[in-house]
Amino acid sequence: MIEFSPGLAGVPAARSKVSYLDGEKGLLEYRGIPLETLAKKSHFVETTYLLIFGNLPTTAQLKKFDHDLRIHRRIKYRIVDLIKCLPESGHPMDALQAAVAALGMFYPDKDVKDPEIQYISAVRLIAKLPTIIAAYARLRRGDDHVQPRDDLSFSENFLYMLTEKVPDKVMSEVFDTCLVLHAEHTMNASTFSGLVTASTLSDPYTVVSSAIGTLGGPLHGGANEKVLRMLTEIGSVENVRTYIEAKVKANEKISGLGHRVYKVKDPRAIILQRLAKRLFKHLGASPLYEIAMEVERVGEEFLASKKVYANVDFYSGILYQKMGIETDFFTPIFAMSRVAGWLAHAFEQVKDNHIFRPREIYEGEHGRVYHPISER
Amino acid sequence: MIEFSPGLAGVPAARSKVSYLDGEKGLLEYRGIPLETLAKKSHFVETTYLLIFGNLPTTAQLKKFDHDLRIHRRIKYRIVDLIKCLPESGHPMDALQAAVAALGMFYPDKDVKDPEIQYISAVRLIAKLPTIIAAYARLRRGDDHVQPRDDLSFSENFLYMLTEKVPDKVMSEVFDTCLVLHAEHTMNASTFSGLVTASTLSDPYTVVSSAIGTLGGPLHGGANEKVLRMLTEIGSVENVRTYIEAKVKANEKISGLGHRVYKVKDPRAIILQRLAKRLFKHLGASPLYEIAMEVERVGEEFLASKKVYANVDFYSGILYQKMGIETDFFTPIFAMSRVAGWLAHAFEQVKDNHIFRPREIYEGEHGRVYHPISER
Repeated sequence: MIEFSPGLAGVPAARSKVSYLDGEKGLLEYRGIPLETLAKKSHFVETTYLLIFGNLPTTAQLKKFDHDLRIHRRIKYRIVDLIKCLPESGHPMDALQAAVAALGMFYPDKDVKDPEIQYISAVRLIAKLPTIIAAYARLRRGDDHVQPRDDLSFSENFLYMLTEKVPDKVMSEVFDTCLVLHAEHTMNASTFSGLVTASTLSDPYTVVSSAIGTLGGPLHGGANEKVLRMLTEIGSVENVRTYIEAKVKANEKISGLGHRVYKVKDPRAIILQRLAKRLFKHLGASPLYEIAMEVERVGEEFLASKKVYANVDFYSGILYQKMGIETDFFTPIFAMSRVAGWLAHAFEQVKDNHIFRPREIYEGEHGRVYHPISER
Repeated sequence: MIEFSPGLAGVPAARSKVSYLDGEKGLLEYRGIPLETLAKKSHFVETTYLLIFGNLPTTAQLKKFDHDLRIHRRIKYRIVDLIKCLPESGHPMDALQAAVAALGMFYPDKDVKDPEIQYISAVRLIAKLPTIIAAYARLRRGDDHVQPRDDLSFSENFLYMLTEKVPDKVMSEVFDTCLVLHAEHTMNASTFSGLVTASTLSDPYTVVSSAIGTLGGPLHGGANEKVLRMLTEIGSVENVRTYIEAKVKANEKISGLGHRVYKVKDPRAIILQRLAKRLFKHLGASPLYEIAMEVERVGEEFLASKKVYANVDFYSGILYQKMGIETDFFTPIFAMSRVAGWLAHAFEQVKDNHIFRPREIYEGEHGRVYHPISER
């Protein structure tokens, strides 16, 4: 009999070739290629292809994939109308979950095992998620949504749809690398929830909608929002040391520092720190950035001995904020990137599928009597 | 090291007090009370209370719960407008997933651990799912949706919203017992997917939206649709024996016969058979019902030695069809009932929560080289 492990910690739930993580070494590989290399040399569209289809694309493959992604950016006016029905005060992750579930209704090709259907639904989801996100961001404040532009790159187009301004090269490149960094991270809760949904052979839109619901939970996505709130609360570089000391003394978690699996600095944080340097040099520093630098410095001083370092969430929020993105859109952007990993795992699952039906340990009573309501 | 078990078969994923199943004895208990008893003496609203809150309600508790469910049946006009944006040709399960995700955006109380929020979101979900389902059924064929009526019982009101006619006592009672039978069934894929989503502390609307996505997959919900298709294909009582013989000879599965865990007749099938007798006596027999009776008779003759008997899906489709419900609404009705079980398990999960993060077995390569695109 297998012992119960809460949250299935340590229990294998799938065989996978999508990504590999060594927390001791600080190594993360997508399809065997170190993330560090991809962050430097690749871009989000190519990395997505690598994750989903297993290999880096050839020139012809990339050309076709990029072209298909560009021409599928538009969303139907009915999806826009649907987004207009959503309350402005809701969380964008719920809006995204609803819109993606609805998206699947427009495409009858549902056989998730068919490679052609996998290809076209991956194209649609990756291409349309940014459009849905940007549309909700604009519609909720009463502005018209901005039609996507086929002539812009993936990341340029998203920032353009959000702001009506084509971003400069530094901004769009930094943003694109952020997407590369968030595209995949082995078997986390949202990926696993996508697997469970995929195991009943639900279509890819439904799978992604489930995964979005799981990513939206406060224990999963949204950590970078918390970092921003903390930096704002600290308020100035001078306050950092007192804040950290108090937290360390009280043995409390400091947002953005420490990670369940990394015992060295999160490789994504190292890259993000470099990106932050580049972006802030280009756009000018901000008080929050100065505070963040100091938090990391003081944090390492106190916590490096405990193997607690800055993680991926530490810098990404500051970067997105500097780009003018509203805080509650950080997790939708995470989703827009992680959809690559979700689909890669889901397609792996259905290739050799077993529906997920774990056991439960029953701890309740037996043979209870049904007392009529007058006797309760 | 724990061995890999595909689909986590036999692996415990939770401790639970919600329901208990003994497939050898054909026993299913909700909170320790045999389903057989509940089907005879209880009704869906009371059973839902039992499942979610752990005990049969007192008179005062039931009065309040029933009242709360009645006054929360209406859906906001924005949800109706949202449903109008959905394509008429889509599957109602996708419509339900989208509408439920959107529903959560109207209610900011998101702390799924708070018992008061658990209560009110359970009320909203149980009360509004039927309204959403009936609205889509009517709107997709161009009819106006029917406003719910507070003076009708849960099941009367649903059938009324669907058909504009208040059903008679036999029909609404039979339908209500069907809901009791489908409300819970230990750790299946949709319940598990709800658990995974709940484990990131996503709100109950998001949890239910995920579970709906998983239930909608062809390997999970939808089996009773297949039974109906089979009966229609057989066409007449005379053809039954030949059909069954051919299937048995070819060692092929017969829709609606056999179950993964039950080695005797599914206790729910026994109750459904009784309900079918009652309904068809009341409304007059139909050819499909006669064929079904014969399939079960001949099926038992050939397969009882292999412990293959009629399961829950065998009769439910015939019943729903006789009530005038369209085939693709069978699974939404399943969802409208199973939401009780989903919420019961999700609330159990968050009480002693561990985020689901299983392990994966990496079978891919390491240290692959990033070749520039010109060299691929």
